[in-house]
Amino acid sequence: MIAERATVVGAGSWGTAFSLVLADAGLDVRLWARRPELATRITETRRNGDYLPEIDLPDEVHATADVDEALEEADLVVLAIPAQKLRAGLAEWAPRLPERATLVSLAKGIELGTGCRMSEVILQATGVAPERLAVVSGPNLAREIAERQPAAGVVAAFDPDTADLVAAACASPWFRPYTSTDVTGCEIAGATKNVIALAVGAAEGLGLGDNSKASVITRGLAETVRLGVALGADPATFSGLAGVGDLIATCMSPLSRNHRVGVGLGRGGTVESVVASIGQTAEGVTSCESILALAREAGVEVPIVESVVAMVADGQRPELIVDALMRRQRKPEKA
Amino acid sequence: MIAERATVVGAGSWGTAFSLVLADAGLDVRLWARRPELATRITETRRNGDYLPEIDLPDEVHATADVDEALEEADLVVLAIPAQKLRAGLAEWAPRLPERATLVSLAKGIELGTGCRMSEVILQATGVAPERLAVVSGPNLAREIAERQPAAGVVAAFDPDTADLVAAACASPWFRPYTSTDVTGCEIAGATKNVIALAVGAAEGLGLGDNSKASVITRGLAETVRLGVALGADPATFSGLAGVGDLIATCMSPLSRNHRVGVGLGRGGTVESVVASIGQTAEGVTSCESILALAREAGVEVPIVESVVAMVADGQRPELIVDALMRRQRKPEKA
Repeated sequence: MIAERATVVGAGSWGTAFSLVLADAGLDVRLWARRPELATRITETRRNGDYLPEIDLPDEVHATADVDEALEEADLVVLAIPAQKLRAGLAEWAPRLPERATLVSLAKGIELGTGCRMSEVILQATGVAPERLAVVSGPNLAREIAERQPAAGVVAAFDPDTADLVAAACASPWFRPYTSTDVTGCEIAGATKNVIALAVGAAEGLGLGDNSKASVITRGLAETVRLGVALGADPATFSGLAGVGDLIATCMSPLSRNHRVGVGLGRGGTVESVVASIGQTAEGVTSCESILALAREAGVEVPIVESVVAMVADGQRPELIVDALMRRQRKPEKA
Repeated sequence: MIAERATVVGAGSWGTAFSLVLADAGLDVRLWARRPELATRITETRRNGDYLPEIDLPDEVHATADVDEALEEADLVVLAIPAQKLRAGLAEWAPRLPERATLVSLAKGIELGTGCRMSEVILQATGVAPERLAVVSGPNLAREIAERQPAAGVVAAFDPDTADLVAAACASPWFRPYTSTDVTGCEIAGATKNVIALAVGAAEGLGLGDNSKASVITRGLAETVRLGVALGADPATFSGLAGVGDLIATCMSPLSRNHRVGVGLGRGGTVESVVASIGQTAEGVTSCESILALAREAGVEVPIVESVVAMVADGQRPELIVDALMRRQRKPEKA
């Protein structure tokens, strides 16, 4: 089976960039925006002025604010909704999903209150069979993807055929999707990296250099692996594009919102002022507490995540990040 | 046992920075420079003007060009000699090593011609028992270490007690050593990351962004793991500080010589002109062919290393890096 028509739900920067990826791969794409005026402006200007103002969208991308029009004959329904709004957003879509459509999650985060991964939210909210679900992850900063810079990603699905279907639907000379069956690993990696990026940004904001940042990333990765494995993930996933690849891109790039929020906190800003200055959602800020809760429930130590929660939720000083890295008992690395 | 006195053999930037780490950890340090005039200048100015001009060395670091003076009562002998000069350099030191001294390798590379890792070179050239050897690796850019920026590293030794001894000898509030028994893994990671850094630098020199660089790093890490595991390393090492940690620091930092050489090549420079403009040794340039030879012998595919060899040794265009990343058959990530 080949997917020919896709609906992208959510016209933020990643949803818009991914609609371009699908169009480049030969699909006919409906890009759904909640606000009719944004859909109209995209149709008129061929650009999404709110999120990717410099990118011309291919002719195969059609913007709409009408759910039924968006879903018509969709083989893929790509969910590009912020993590904490996904369940509510799906309430509107669930009853109208085409019966045979494959759902693709681009959301990265852990739901507050429930501790659910995005795939769990989607399965619960739509009632679709797990075989019809895939998640896309990897080092995929939206603006660079939209600029058609070469990048690789991971399509994970419980059913390898579904992973292949979605990979074929987004493969182009600029975007190289690998496949995986480790949905849990990709999702834990994708959610936790935003929190680690906050820590790395804070280190940078404190004036620390690449050794310190690489150390925070690496020890952050170790925490992520511990958490993922406790939740049933394959440890190899965390060494791959959805793990260390996404972590590196998110932690090092000035394009990453989570990184920028961290830098602002490291420089002494308050969470409120820094988040306000960024404008868009920084998933690490909203998901850090639910990730810490997941880790505690699983009995896993996550000192860097803990220090981010202390910084974000409790207003503690950013130097805690360095303490989390340096002040523990000397020991074997694998312990 | 506690190490009280250390000799650092080689007053390049990393040898000099590590002598500062040892001094901060409370050791009395002899820093040996081949050139007597450099030793004299370090003694007079308390700075190594050739490699770390802005760093004041602690009083506990004593520079000398005299081998016997350097080795007197040494508990640790730290070898900070470039990879391709290590065997020749050791010829002078081997007969004079104190009988109970622990040898510590800071060298990262694979010997040309023999394909030997640095630990193998040291064991062959000195005849010491493997239990007396340790290697130090991690995200440790010399200048940042010398500036006392917080960083973590790995001390690997065949004998865990030796790893503990060396870790205790370099632990300070700014440098946090973890221990490991995977000498092979640390060395393969440390040598290969320089080659991957050349590839990442080339991508950057070509104008590519953080997604592309993170993708090259991640796929480069996958190659490194395949090679390491084929040579008997523990795959977990590559997810740690000596693996991904060092790789990130080396690949992302403008302070990394290998990264800078790669950027120059990506911008269209010749190997000769770019290496000449950097001045110091870039191990990736000298070690890439021996790493490729090791991989071929082990039957391991290393497309990114191959593309670096083509670029460095055969003068091929840097766009090969992108080809290595993007033009292969679509497949599961773990394959």
